[in-house]
Amino acid sequence: MANRGCTVTPSYMQKIRSIPLFAASLAGLLLPLGAIAAPTDSAAIRDAALKDDVAWAFTEGLTTEVGPRPAGTPQEARARDWAVARLNALGFSNVRAEPYKMPVWVRGRDEAKILSPFPQNLVLAALGNSGSTSDKGIEGEVVYFPTIADLEVAPDASIRGKIVFVSHGMTATQDGSSYGYYGAARRQGPSIAAKKGAIAILIRSIGTDHHRVPHTGVQMWADGVTPIPAAALSVPDAEQLARVMGRGQPVKLHLTLTSKMLKDQPSGNVIAEIPGSDPAAGVVVAACHLDSWDQGTGAIDDATGCGIAAAAALQVAKGGTPRRTIRVLMAGAEEVGGDGARAYYKAHGTEKHALAMESDFGADRVWRVDFKLPQGHEALTKRIADALAPLGVGAGTQEAGGGADIAPLVKAGVPVIDLQQDGTRYFDLHHTPDDTLDKVDPIQLRQNVAAWAVTLNLVANTEDSMGIN
Amino acid sequence: MANRGCTVTPSYMQKIRSIPLFAASLAGLLLPLGAIAAPTDSAAIRDAALKDDVAWAFTEGLTTEVGPRPAGTPQEARARDWAVARLNALGFSNVRAEPYKMPVWVRGRDEAKILSPFPQNLVLAALGNSGSTSDKGIEGEVVYFPTIADLEVAPDASIRGKIVFVSHGMTATQDGSSYGYYGAARRQGPSIAAKKGAIAILIRSIGTDHHRVPHTGVQMWADGVTPIPAAALSVPDAEQLARVMGRGQPVKLHLTLTSKMLKDQPSGNVIAEIPGSDPAAGVVVAACHLDSWDQGTGAIDDATGCGIAAAAALQVAKGGTPRRTIRVLMAGAEEVGGDGARAYYKAHGTEKHALAMESDFGADRVWRVDFKLPQGHEALTKRIADALAPLGVGAGTQEAGGGADIAPLVKAGVPVIDLQQDGTRYFDLHHTPDDTLDKVDPIQLRQNVAAWAVTLNLVANTEDSMGIN
Repeated sequence: MANRGCTVTPSYMQKIRSIPLFAASLAGLLLPLGAIAAPTDSAAIRDAALKDDVAWAFTEGLTTEVGPRPAGTPQEARARDWAVARLNALGFSNVRAEPYKMPVWVRGRDEAKILSPFPQNLVLAALGNSGSTSDKGIEGEVVYFPTIADLEVAPDASIRGKIVFVSHGMTATQDGSSYGYYGAARRQGPSIAAKKGAIAILIRSIGTDHHRVPHTGVQMWADGVTPIPAAALSVPDAEQLARVMGRGQPVKLHLTLTSKMLKDQPSGNVIAEIPGSDPAAGVVVAACHLDSWDQGTGAIDDATGCGIAAAAALQVAKGGTPRRTIRVLMAGAEEVGGDGARAYYKAHGTEKHALAMESDFGADRVWRVDFKLPQGHEALTKRIADALAPLGVGAGTQEAGGGADIAPLVKAGVPVIDLQQDGTRYFDLHHTPDDTLDKVDPIQLRQNVAAWAVTLNLVANTEDSMGIN
Repeated sequence: MANRGCTVTPSYMQKIRSIPLFAASLAGLLLPLGAIAAPTDSAAIRDAALKDDVAWAFTEGLTTEVGPRPAGTPQEARARDWAVARLNALGFSNVRAEPYKMPVWVRGRDEAKILSPFPQNLVLAALGNSGSTSDKGIEGEVVYFPTIADLEVAPDASIRGKIVFVSHGMTATQDGSSYGYYGAARRQGPSIAAKKGAIAILIRSIGTDHHRVPHTGVQMWADGVTPIPAAALSVPDAEQLARVMGRGQPVKLHLTLTSKMLKDQPSGNVIAEIPGSDPAAGVVVAACHLDSWDQGTGAIDDATGCGIAAAAALQVAKGGTPRRTIRVLMAGAEEVGGDGARAYYKAHGTEKHALAMESDFGADRVWRVDFKLPQGHEALTKRIADALAPLGVGAGTQEAGGGADIAPLVKAGVPVIDLQQDGTRYFDLHHTPDDTLDKVDPIQLRQNVAAWAVTLNLVANTEDSMGIN
């Protein structure tokens, strides 16, 4: 359960034994039932969930048998088929895919070379919605900005016709909060550079590792901006280019960044339910996303999130039919703009929602819980915090905000609980080829399942109104 | 100085301050001179070397201003020019390149894709001297062997016409000893597979990391074997392919591994000297190699080795003219078969050599010293061990053996001392795109310079014969 830092899981840890759950369940039943309005005691659910095999098997299966699954592609369609089959096999009800259409950006070749003064290749990856070069690529002189703030204030004349390079120094944080600030180089940098007349933009990867694995990610062009080629250098390559720039000589690059845009491609959400006994009490949504970026196998982003949500729902179901329906939402197209979340809200936004939760920050341990519940739910908040405390999860003081897959629900006022995951090493891997199964720690994954299971169980079974009726 | 494990050097550590050496040198001169037959006390040399800036500057300069420098290519020629200029600027004497010609294998495209049952790309790198596919690539069914021992005993009929995949489970060791055993999959695997009729071979990278960075490396075809395409999958990709194989369905791959062989390309050694006062006493060779693999910038393999050897020789020279000439040998073409070492021996093998040393195992701290000195040199051995002990270097019990760049000298009976470097994280990086400057720890690099400087100083100045005359 300890923070594993940069240590990867040794392969022997990945050989999950199939542990019979009977002994643990029996122990749970022998515990005295307290004042909790739940058919199964939190301790029993927690103990069983800490031996869960479903989340690992889901993660291993999706990343192995489907692998990369970019939104709107045939690989994502295979992921939907795979998830529907797996969720049916696990015993969920009302399992179905809910399709929609979306535009899709497709990566081609990503190549960069310093032509002068020190000829050598650089490793990079185009950002989502990047403009495309021709197959022959483009050449240009590099103009360097240590931060996006430097780019913002630079005169257009210093940029016109050149390749912009923006660096920065993102470091790891447990809560992932630095992603917001440093991520601006990816999200806004390309539009700023294009407006100022740059022919391309390279950014230092929004990442905290030191490997030759660039971090891609989506960016949206501001209104009226003509797209230019936009890519992220791996951190060592960005440091190398900064050193080369530091020699004071003009630096010329050759870039080949080919890609294409497709219209109206099929994507979709996958939904599966544990039906509740009281339809009027509203549904509890447990969300994750099924799509991934194209260069890794989307293990921590977000196969684990889907494994955690599905496994936790099943752990609750073992205790009997919950009062409220638990609906697992495996959203499509989270990575490229949230089409899945919008499609879900369009189809289901008028239904009563008691709670929304989302797992989309890897699979390292949950360390903090944040709430946004209706007034008068303080006792429920305390029961959840007490049930999470033995897992090493402390109650925070911030208001919960959810994530992209439940954003329209949260905006509409649906209550939300955030089980905050340890993000210390998340941005070592995020959106890179390195997002693979070996980075998942099965022990911490189970702690996530346990935290989710006790939380879902308490909310799904509470007599509190959750603001409904 | 502690073992840094997988922690990479924070960039702030890389801002080396230019520390005046005067204070440290003065302190050294005030120490009483003991019984050591050296003009400068080991403690003074050690203290000055622990503030060395030359090794870092050499490493930073070579990896930035030249970058990758495969043997026999124009990049290696640039590295020779760069090194000659730098060694002259540092004040060495008799600086020159000594050219020779060699055959050169040149990488083309490295692409692999699982066609069925679970379509997805795999990351791999062709091994040195790999056969080439056509531009369109080849298709074949995979046959899996958990170890090279399994491949060796497999009947030819099970392999003919197929793509062999050999896995294994190399783990890190401080002395790097596991490279010998596990490396057989790379060195002998391709010839064994080709003899049995395979159309290609993939091995799990000979590496201890879990990143999508394959480990290339040389392999030589056994006599009479027709080359086949041969490549290393990154460790996560090898684990993925093993999992896919484990599903029990036939697995088909598409491989595109293009490459070419060139004859008689120019390579060369670079030599630089600190001339000694007694030409009859023989030269002390301080060796490293200037070439690197093509996908990283050759920081730990072996820019640091050359930085250490050069910096240590200069630290000795600060104390005055040594008795013996110290000759820095920056060999060409180590990675691809030792052409540089053979060329050196051909040109200089008949000269008197008092000692040979080599640095080619990264830049993490020296932790053990091994000796192979003539009989009667026990007092010198003890003086060296005593001088190294304050640096945390213990004397070992194994006989020193040198490395590839000095192998012909060692074979001819030249005395040798090995300053063993900590290899715990070496095979995380070795022969990968990840072998870049950010992996070098400047603090441990200086400890290397100090260990080398005290050792070179004692041998270069000792009145012991070193077996000469």
